[in-house]
Amino acid sequence: MRSGALEMGSEVAKGAASGPVIRGAAVVDFFLRVVAIIATLGSAIAMGTTNETLPFFTQFIRFRAKYTDLPMFTFFVVANSVVSAYLVLSLALSIFHIMRSRAHASRVVLIFFDAGMLALLTAGASAAAAIVYLAHKGNSRANWIAICQQFNSFCERISGSMIGSFGGILIFVVLILLSAVALSRR
Amino acid sequence: MRSGALEMGSEVAKGAASGPVIRGAAVVDFFLRVVAIIATLGSAIAMGTTNETLPFFTQFIRFRAKYTDLPMFTFFVVANSVVSAYLVLSLALSIFHIMRSRAHASRVVLIFFDAGMLALLTAGASAAAAIVYLAHKGNSRANWIAICQQFNSFCERISGSMIGSFGGILIFVVLILLSAVALSRR
Repeated sequence: MRSGALEMGSEVAKGAASGPVIRGAAVVDFFLRVVAIIATLGSAIAMGTTNETLPFFTQFIRFRAKYTDLPMFTFFVVANSVVSAYLVLSLALSIFHIMRSRAHASRVVLIFFDAGMLALLTAGASAAAAIVYLAHKGNSRANWIAICQQFNSFCERISGSMIGSFGGILIFVVLILLSAVALSRR
Repeated sequence: MRSGALEMGSEVAKGAASGPVIRGAAVVDFFLRVVAIIATLGSAIAMGTTNETLPFFTQFIRFRAKYTDLPMFTFFVVANSVVSAYLVLSLALSIFHIMRSRAHASRVVLIFFDAGMLALLTAGASAAAAIVYLAHKGNSRANWIAICQQFNSFCERISGSMIGSFGGILIFVVLILLSAVALSRR
């Protein structure tokens, strides 16, 4: 009981000093979301516009590589697009939190959706990364050849498009931490 | 200013009634963690013990399939093991939260690590799922054959081991939500 009363006292003292901290966290939150929008949208566009046609072809087949050839790459584009659309919408809540640092129900909603989007983005990035690895190295046990030997520029683009997505994952973990800190300081 | 004062009043009223809610959330948190331990450990064991040797062999090669043949499956086993070890350790904090419902710094730490572990588990599960899909369906554009036509029981085991991992992902999202609710109700 005594320690409970002490804790309450320290919370009241903290409450008076934590307003600027929470507002600062909300501003950082806003800028991180903008960075994450650019990163995930860039990844989706980099993967979605990749297209390589090899200079030789037979009578029946032209050798072309596109992201739709592999369902994991399609999932990657969809996941990144969905996440960046969500981030654009979440900017509204982020601005609301800059103005009203005492809001807490909206922060809980934001943490929940951030966690869901973190899972979606990680799933897309990781599935695509697994295929990028196979494309580079192949697998001798499963008899899967490394297609990067033929499709050079295609492989470079899909490898590069991973960066934005994994950067977005890191930002999401920080965003969840920021929201949790703001909730605890309230 | 006026709405701020109103909010503070409603928070005090809520604070008195929210003790049992927070404790209930902490108990649910504990049980969900136990379920997640079983799920992720089960996934790691199911994948790690898979081993199929085909009944025919040549003079030089015995056809064997193990999880170490593909680096994504190794990552899957490692990720699931790490996450279940983390969950065992986090049980201590979970019990602490059942006893001390006013604790908030430890909840912030828990949300942060939960988010990190959510990302790790999703990455492992998703990379392995991408390979499981390839093993079942193959890919004609990349000339990757479906190895499940030879390795039947291996493919069944690796497909089954996905379940626990994806169940763990869902539980982590709920765990993060529960901690956020407990922080906001404090």
